[in-house]
Amino acid sequence: MSSEKVDQLMQAMTIAEKIGQLIQTTADVFPNGDAVVTGPMKSANMSAESVYTIGTVLGISGAKKVKQIQYDYLQHNRLKIPLIFMADVIHGYQTIFPIPLALGASFNPETMKIASQVAAQESAAGGIHVTFAPMVDLVRDPRWGRVMESTGEDPYLNSVMATASVQGFQGDSLDDHHVAACVKHFAAYGAAEAGREYNTVDVSEWRFKEQYLPAYQAAVDAQAALVMTSFNTLFGVPASANQHLMRDILRQEMAFNGVLISDWSAVAELINHGVAGDHQAAADLALKAGVDIDMMGYAYAKYLEKAADLDTTTAQLIDESARRVLELKDKLGLFTDPYRGLDDTREATEIKTTANLQAAQAAAEDSIVLLKNDRAVLPLVPETRAALIGPVADSGDILGSWSWQGDPAATETIKTALSAAMPNLTFAAGSDYRTSSVRDLKEAVALARQQDVIIAALGLPADESGEATSLANIQLPAEQLVLLRELAKLNKPIISVIVAGRPLDLTEVADLSTAILFAWFPGSKGAAALSRILLGEVNPSGKLPMTFPRSVGQVPIYYNEYRTGRPSTNPFGRDDIKYQSKYMDEVNAPLYPFGFGLSYADISVKAIELAQTTVTPADTLAVTVHLENQSTISGKTVIECYTHQQVGETVRPVKSLVAFEKVEIAGESLADFTIEIPCEHLASVHQDLHQAVDSGEYQLMVGLDSDHLITVPFTIE
Amino acid sequence: MSSEKVDQLMQAMTIAEKIGQLIQTTADVFPNGDAVVTGPMKSANMSAESVYTIGTVLGISGAKKVKQIQYDYLQHNRLKIPLIFMADVIHGYQTIFPIPLALGASFNPETMKIASQVAAQESAAGGIHVTFAPMVDLVRDPRWGRVMESTGEDPYLNSVMATASVQGFQGDSLDDHHVAACVKHFAAYGAAEAGREYNTVDVSEWRFKEQYLPAYQAAVDAQAALVMTSFNTLFGVPASANQHLMRDILRQEMAFNGVLISDWSAVAELINHGVAGDHQAAADLALKAGVDIDMMGYAYAKYLEKAADLDTTTAQLIDESARRVLELKDKLGLFTDPYRGLDDTREATEIKTTANLQAAQAAAEDSIVLLKNDRAVLPLVPETRAALIGPVADSGDILGSWSWQGDPAATETIKTALSAAMPNLTFAAGSDYRTSSVRDLKEAVALARQQDVIIAALGLPADESGEATSLANIQLPAEQLVLLRELAKLNKPIISVIVAGRPLDLTEVADLSTAILFAWFPGSKGAAALSRILLGEVNPSGKLPMTFPRSVGQVPIYYNEYRTGRPSTNPFGRDDIKYQSKYMDEVNAPLYPFGFGLSYADISVKAIELAQTTVTPADTLAVTVHLENQSTISGKTVIECYTHQQVGETVRPVKSLVAFEKVEIAGESLADFTIEIPCEHLASVHQDLHQAVDSGEYQLMVGLDSDHLITVPFTIE
Repeated sequence: MSSEKVDQLMQAMTIAEKIGQLIQTTADVFPNGDAVVTGPMKSANMSAESVYTIGTVLGISGAKKVKQIQYDYLQHNRLKIPLIFMADVIHGYQTIFPIPLALGASFNPETMKIASQVAAQESAAGGIHVTFAPMVDLVRDPRWGRVMESTGEDPYLNSVMATASVQGFQGDSLDDHHVAACVKHFAAYGAAEAGREYNTVDVSEWRFKEQYLPAYQAAVDAQAALVMTSFNTLFGVPASANQHLMRDILRQEMAFNGVLISDWSAVAELINHGVAGDHQAAADLALKAGVDIDMMGYAYAKYLEKAADLDTTTAQLIDESARRVLELKDKLGLFTDPYRGLDDTREATEIKTTANLQAAQAAAEDSIVLLKNDRAVLPLVPETRAALIGPVADSGDILGSWSWQGDPAATETIKTALSAAMPNLTFAAGSDYRTSSVRDLKEAVALARQQDVIIAALGLPADESGEATSLANIQLPAEQLVLLRELAKLNKPIISVIVAGRPLDLTEVADLSTAILFAWFPGSKGAAALSRILLGEVNPSGKLPMTFPRSVGQVPIYYNEYRTGRPSTNPFGRDDIKYQSKYMDEVNAPLYPFGFGLSYADISVKAIELAQTTVTPADTLAVTVHLENQSTISGKTVIECYTHQQVGETVRPVKSLVAFEKVEIAGESLADFTIEIPCEHLASVHQDLHQAVDSGEYQLMVGLDSDHLITVPFTIE
Repeated sequence: MSSEKVDQLMQAMTIAEKIGQLIQTTADVFPNGDAVVTGPMKSANMSAESVYTIGTVLGISGAKKVKQIQYDYLQHNRLKIPLIFMADVIHGYQTIFPIPLALGASFNPETMKIASQVAAQESAAGGIHVTFAPMVDLVRDPRWGRVMESTGEDPYLNSVMATASVQGFQGDSLDDHHVAACVKHFAAYGAAEAGREYNTVDVSEWRFKEQYLPAYQAAVDAQAALVMTSFNTLFGVPASANQHLMRDILRQEMAFNGVLISDWSAVAELINHGVAGDHQAAADLALKAGVDIDMMGYAYAKYLEKAADLDTTTAQLIDESARRVLELKDKLGLFTDPYRGLDDTREATEIKTTANLQAAQAAAEDSIVLLKNDRAVLPLVPETRAALIGPVADSGDILGSWSWQGDPAATETIKTALSAAMPNLTFAAGSDYRTSSVRDLKEAVALARQQDVIIAALGLPADESGEATSLANIQLPAEQLVLLRELAKLNKPIISVIVAGRPLDLTEVADLSTAILFAWFPGSKGAAALSRILLGEVNPSGKLPMTFPRSVGQVPIYYNEYRTGRPSTNPFGRDDIKYQSKYMDEVNAPLYPFGFGLSYADISVKAIELAQTTVTPADTLAVTVHLENQSTISGKTVIECYTHQQVGETVRPVKSLVAFEKVEIAGESLADFTIEIPCEHLASVHQDLHQAVDSGEYQLMVGLDSDHLITVPFTIE
């Protein structure tokens, strides 16, 4: 599958030049035509000359800058091998979409695909060839700030979203309107112990293959061009040094043949992990594990010093990795056109277009979750005398983390969007995110007292979400809870709009609020989307992709827990039955379950029918779902299909999502939807670590969230 | 190793009689000479006749009763095979010692050994042959109530305590003053996810062997006669059905050749776990896994129905298990004397003796932990005008869970013990454990206002500790915190005495208290021990066997965490360095670290010296520790030795306890202690899952807790 060009280059390259292909640095080493040997590169004894053998750079964009750097680089590179430009384009380039966790909440792979497509199109116009996305790590701990970059806690939802994202980024042909996807973080980075960023991960290989691996596999199957190693340890060995993980599982079992890149400095950090004594040892471990590119760690640069004396095995491993990098360049068409897509007019015409912004708004509208709506207080009529209160209300900080090219200062705020639609809206911040004054609080309460409805826009700033933002306390900041309590004393309906990148403990917020809209970080057009939802121009349809706990004391909590020997018979309440799997002081059920989200319409599943109740593992189950909308307005919702296996070779989850579909149903109507579920979605991992679909008795459970389900039995022969 | 008697019986027994040996029930099926076929036994179609083939019973004691049941049973049993009587004798029979977690806090294996010896002696006099102890499960989550029955979070401490306990229970010869030990729960029961009782456990086999297995291995090496299966799933399969765990690891690798018994109904619960469709399938799985005795599940009773038609493999497995049960009976001497030790006079003379009670008091004095002692407020002089406040103050509920034969109503309370020593002591409860009244609160505050010092005796009742007592909130109950806050407003010294069976979030308690004594559940003589410590007659020397978190948001937190790639450079504080393994809103360090505990004396490690700084894996490190006591009073403390390995084949903990010794040092003196550390204690589990001592650079770290350590380097060649 390697091209003639790659073969030629491999023949022509010196070993030092091959090593260069494996080193990644920031693009700022090429500022003005002369390479700058920065600190860590200097420590690695890299020469100015060797800098011009570096194969890829990251973190820069802009057609003009990229063109300049590429041009300059090619002047110096002996064999004219162009650079690849990589960057973190996660949920949009300049048009910022809702954060990935919100896209998960859309339960709509088309929304994810469009978000990735637009991000690809805009960043390709900005000179990017590879994006470090999607992150498909399964997450179950809201203390971990990086849950915002995932699509949640479910292996199947994550897999569907992984596929959609890779397809959106890469398109059919990786042409110059697309970028190569780099699936991350391999593997199981999302299981950081105690939710503490970068902490140890430990799961059995059985569980890893059951729950964590599927989304990576889906992304690899969707032809993702790259995979990124994770920072964490797995099975006792840091991912970037883990031969079993990378060689046996990723390369062999998962059949990944693209480029494996380390996370930022992860190879050098093998020293901190204590499995390597120095950079050279770290490089050896990573190379043996099959890490092709050393991102920012300069451990592979150690090979340059002794390029002439490398043993055959090392030289072969370097060859193997260099060839993969060249193949990626070939696949991207960089040998044909090192300046692919770099057309100044594209930046002007293809970035932040009306269409792209509309797509971002549609995605926000698709992903915002209505958690509570007592007495149908929502939607509001535009004339409502409402007090908009809270630190988020007039903040442009609603793009979320990983929105590099996004501009919060230029982002429409909720106040701006809502004021345009609600003539009687008044506003007072009342509190900042984590600081407050008695004056501000009093002002807000006084203002709210004059109004009929309170809209409390609360939440966290973007910099309390994303990488390295673990929180031990997942309640709203104390200052905002004080504000909410004071507002609640006014005995007016409170609509809480929460902006955050993670599930929060909303127990008190729910007690104090009449309605709750969970907005995630909704992106460039999030305020407009919220405004339309508050006013009923859009009927909310987002569903939670992560369980919302009642308190941090329930964490980790997730819907698809494994069966135990002593299940609670009363997970929603308390009783006197002692010897069951539960807490004494808290019910087992979360505050809001996975897959939960209300609608302004009154939609319910009336009945379900299976076309066949006995199938084979090769068959597809077809379930017809009879939906009813008893309200007058139309609405979208998500039909969620779970299965429960009676007896497994290994312990099975209490339920597992196996299919879902976002559907729309008109007001006062009945509608039937038929959902096809390939039985292969029901496979489980056996003790021998291989997947199989077990014959036996199953239940199919269908509903609009993971807790309220209609069940029918079926059999796999 | 099987005796002639066992061989003879095996020859003579029918298959149905062999099956009977594998069934365990409660002794109440034999009430008055006629077997009663109870509910589950009836469901299992057991006949009155087959009941007299049952091999072992549990949960009854008393020489007279046991003798009667044994006598009656032998009248009916064709081959006169006596019953074994088993029971949960955990931290004492009638003389209740501090809970096992407290015995862990003693850091004194001799204390553990004595506690087990006394429990064995008393319960043997009461007719017990086997105790379901020690529990050696490694625990790291204070939400799990059963941490009280473990000795804590450290593999080495647990191993030492496991050995001491088995030796104490069994003695040298398992004579009639001892009982057989049943090590539990195999395996990794202590890692229940989210601290929720009976929940799924999942760890990699690597981590399992590194951290969880050592204490079980120590108990097996100490010749524990039985092992109990755990309720939980491990590696995807419930323990009682887990052939890899029981056959490959326990029987083969760990060389255990005793009796494997299920936990209560754990075989039948394989149905709930979803790996067996019915009792017969559950029995087949357990038997194949090598479970010899089915405790209370009556799944093995299914074999009785088709005893004549069993296939050869099943019959062989039944033979194998029946033989093990008979061998245990033989080892206990029951074939020689089915009434061994059943002498009425023993119960009168050997139970709750002065010596035993003194031993229990000494154990309590050895295990209570002084967590804080600002301005040396402790010890008190007897004449102090002190107000004793709190729900624990006048409660006999200080024995803790698993004290079956203990009698809280007959247990001396703190108030009683302290009143006898402090003439000016006054008392008001102020609050109950989880309820309170304004009147009681006011009364307590009014009383305290008149005194110079407040002793706040706070904590949890025994029934909020032990099995099935998981808590999502690990703070003191709200009512008690209200009480403490009100007392704190009086601005008097507050000495908080905390009785609980788990680490608590004591952050606020520490803020409000001048001193804190953590008493665990201190047992029959706990009040006297506390009184002596409060008054300085005993200088406290307990050390925490589990880390005390600042909040539940830090859980799981433990001292021997694995190294990460991005360790925090400021674990005790906050800084601006973002990309490190930490929380944004909480420091990494716990409130009180593992191994921590103060003394009234001012003892410190001045220096340490290694006899040799280069050793081989077969060598023993000898470290001389120079201790200084700058105060005038003598004191005991624990010298704790940790190692840090620079580079491992797998990721290594930041530090690992490898030796400790409880020592005493006189006031105003210097003393040297030499501690021997066999290098085999430094073994780690490699990727191939085998243990090895790596050559390379290490650090030895010595101190009086896990956070304040003096370090010297050494090398293993």
